[in-house]
Amino acid sequence: MPAVSAAVNRPRSESDVPPIRHLLGLEDLSARQIGDLLDRAEDYLGVGEAGRPKRDDLKGVVVANLFFEPSTRTRTSFGLAARRLGADTVDFSPGGSSLVKGESFIDTAKNIEAMGVDILVVRHNSAGAPHLLARHVRSGVVNAGDGAHEHPTQALLDLFTIRRRRGRIEGLTVGLVGDIAHSRVARSNIHGLIKLGARVIVCGPPTLVPDGITKLGVEVAHRLEDILPHCDVLNLLRVQFERQRTGYFPSVGEYAHLFGMDSARLKLAKPDVLLLAPGPINRGVEITPEVADGPHSAILEQVTNGLAIRMAVLTGIAGVR
Amino acid sequence: MPAVSAAVNRPRSESDVPPIRHLLGLEDLSARQIGDLLDRAEDYLGVGEAGRPKRDDLKGVVVANLFFEPSTRTRTSFGLAARRLGADTVDFSPGGSSLVKGESFIDTAKNIEAMGVDILVVRHNSAGAPHLLARHVRSGVVNAGDGAHEHPTQALLDLFTIRRRRGRIEGLTVGLVGDIAHSRVARSNIHGLIKLGARVIVCGPPTLVPDGITKLGVEVAHRLEDILPHCDVLNLLRVQFERQRTGYFPSVGEYAHLFGMDSARLKLAKPDVLLLAPGPINRGVEITPEVADGPHSAILEQVTNGLAIRMAVLTGIAGVR
Amino acid sequence: MPAVSAAVNRPRSESDVPPIRHLLGLEDLSARQIGDLLDRAEDYLGVGEAGRPKRDDLKGVVVANLFFEPSTRTRTSFGLAARRLGADTVDFSPGGSSLVKGESFIDTAKNIEAMGVDILVVRHNSAGAPHLLARHVRSGVVNAGDGAHEHPTQALLDLFTIRRRRGRIEGLTVGLVGDIAHSRVARSNIHGLIKLGARVIVCGPPTLVPDGITKLGVEVAHRLEDILPHCDVLNLLRVQFERQRTGYFPSVGEYAHLFGMDSARLKLAKPDVLLLAPGPINRGVEITPEVADGPHSAILEQVTNGLAIRMAVLTGIAGVR
Repeated sequence: MPAVSAAVNRPRSESDVPPIRHLLGLEDLSARQIGDLLDRAEDYLGVGEAGRPKRDDLKGVVVANLFFEPSTRTRTSFGLAARRLGADTVDFSPGGSSLVKGESFIDTAKNIEAMGVDILVVRHNSAGAPHLLARHVRSGVVNAGDGAHEHPTQALLDLFTIRRRRGRIEGLTVGLVGDIAHSRVARSNIHGLIKLGARVIVCGPPTLVPDGITKLGVEVAHRLEDILPHCDVLNLLRVQFERQRTGYFPSVGEYAHLFGMDSARLKLAKPDVLLLAPGPINRGVEITPEVADGPHSAILEQVTNGLAIRMAVLTGIAGVR
Repeated sequence: MPAVSAAVNRPRSESDVPPIRHLLGLEDLSARQIGDLLDRAEDYLGVGEAGRPKRDDLKGVVVANLFFEPSTRTRTSFGLAARRLGADTVDFSPGGSSLVKGESFIDTAKNIEAMGVDILVVRHNSAGAPHLLARHVRSGVVNAGDGAHEHPTQALLDLFTIRRRRGRIEGLTVGLVGDIAHSRVARSNIHGLIKLGARVIVCGPPTLVPDGITKLGVEVAHRLEDILPHCDVLNLLRVQFERQRTGYFPSVGEYAHLFGMDSARLKLAKPDVLLLAPGPINRGVEITPEVADGPHSAILEQVTNGLAIRMAVLTGIAGVR
Repeated sequence: MPAVSAAVNRPRSESDVPPIRHLLGLEDLSARQIGDLLDRAEDYLGVGEAGRPKRDDLKGVVVANLFFEPSTRTRTSFGLAARRLGADTVDFSPGGSSLVKGESFIDTAKNIEAMGVDILVVRHNSAGAPHLLARHVRSGVVNAGDGAHEHPTQALLDLFTIRRRRGRIEGLTVGLVGDIAHSRVARSNIHGLIKLGARVIVCGPPTLVPDGITKLGVEVAHRLEDILPHCDVLNLLRVQFERQRTGYFPSVGEYAHLFGMDSARLKLAKPDVLLLAPGPINRGVEITPEVADGPHSAILEQVTNGLAIRMAVLTGIAGVR
């Protein structure tokens, strides 16, 4: 199921990077396509800032948020990114359906699409739901998180934040810390970072690092102290407390003790280490308050960058140059 | 309680069709007024399509959705129709109140109105609630469904879809299939179709076809096979599963067996029969998937046409020419 | 925690009234600042009326509603005020968190702010939550109700309604009737009325009038009949039925009997008495239907005035002249 096709919604100018029709995952994008989206986000960074005038890049475009899983931040970010560029938005949150029930899921989306929608932003707890949808609709489809599979705009904003802070991604060593097994953020980050030439080390308890993960080109570690001296960037994945019931997850206290980033561990890291976290952070678990609010942390910048990334993705799919 | 009055909110041009002040039901409209709304929707059909520029026909107008019954599709359609024409919208969904509690229902609406609202779109589970409201407010009132009474914009979009597919409504034979007794869609369709000169046959289990229905000018049948050879259009009403508990409703399996539209039954119909369904459809109940997605079905067109109809109704009430 | 500072977001013109950076409560504003907001609201009164064109005073501004307590009216009023002036709005209602959990409340707000938000409108059930927030964000903060502490835009619209109906506030006698102890509306009204030179009498059952209230400059009464002949304005506070469980509150019937405004009591009042109620009113409790809908009542005007007040507050904070 290719995320990229030659088809475009609208004419684009002379760039020879294949335009994106959908954004289903970073696995399907080339390094050049990812770089193109990051460059595009650079242009939009100022637009999302407080007090800046709106633009009409997406005037006439209708963007629908179809969130089958609850979300406020990602949904708000997509909605605001769209409206700040003049799009109309529709929020359609049908409530938790625990399965992709084939037809009914697609029927819902096709009905929304039939109201004149151009781009469907979809979150669903089933991996592959956005891909399934993309085969059945004429709209552009953006994956806003599908099960434990991919969350491409989160990874793009992580890449963008690294590139802005460090000037490059190639050659950097990035540690992904936490529950690798169940994290769509980790999976999308791995695809994007590897494509852009970073060295990636995943680090977490053995129960939460899947066996075959090295096939994606990453290295594996189980002690945070082992990777701290080598990492230029650390991405501290959010602890999802509901996982604890599974028995795979240590207690929160034990997790914080082993994998939480605090001032003591920060001393073991490179002096200019960059700390990312997809948020909302659990203060005192993945990261202590003083580190989260300290100079190494880019947590709030990530949120601001997320708006620019979503503007870049939406305009990219709409064919706006 | 007349749905039509000579009063208008804004000056209109030379048309001699009495303008609408509220849209409470098709029972109260003349054939010319219905035709005027369908003509008006024709003008708006392109506006709702993906990628088309917005218009400012409703600039400065505020449309409030007051949905006392849950709804996502109709609410979304009204909201999008309003915003695509430059209106501001307000969503006010006070949650299920099971009765029109006289003052409190009107107080709620008058409070919303006092915020500068021009048009109130109201859904309520009590028949007559929008009519009651129209007597107490200065805003235009649009009935978006009141109990088992009327759902005029759904019927208008059905009429519009028939007219666009067939070029006319007069002289056609239209079958309404299913739970006639509890369907506001059926009731509004009957009023509109009869006024525009169609022959209407209602068809459902005897427990779900009210005795006095023939007074509205329709014929009654109880076997789908009996009406199939005669109908130019079939409108397959949605099965509302909650009705089954009443004992009036057959089992879903029995309903599908007797009244579901499938490929075998389609062979008994006229070769160019047009199939409508108000949706969301229950695939395999009112209609099988292959028929729903086949060439006779206009189900998704109905959704698109619904946007144009709602634009026509809102601009009609706002007095825009 | 000052509600006023010399800092402004945008340049303002020659007025020598210190501009507001946040609106946290009327306790912190000077009489001139309050008067400035009322004058400003006068300018916006026509903008909110049905059918009036939108303006772009807030174009490019993003206003976020952060309601940690459920509300539809106040939230709708702020959202509509913002959008009618060209702002983009974001609704973020994280659901009831019963405490200001320090960091997590601020983290939520800072995340929303990082999406390019200029003004945060906050409702929270903990007194002081907006003040806490104002110390941690760069956005303007508007208190839309914090516990039993303040609800400044409600009091401003009450003041605005009195000034419009009576031409002045200074020298008038205003009675605040009902549950003074738990009412943020009462507290904000007291601060605003006293600053603008009104005489204020609070009147309610002894259990619901706090002992130290006279320190705020008000007089206390416990029988409505005692104050009726003296009051130019009566503000009938809403009975919050959930308070009855506390034992401090009389039964609804007893409350209506002792403090409800009806036609008989109206005869004891000044002939031109003005009746306000923050709504939604309980008809037959604080006020009988015939009085609520009678010529002394300004209840719906208050709602309309509320839109103008919120426009004044938002543009004041955004630095629009």
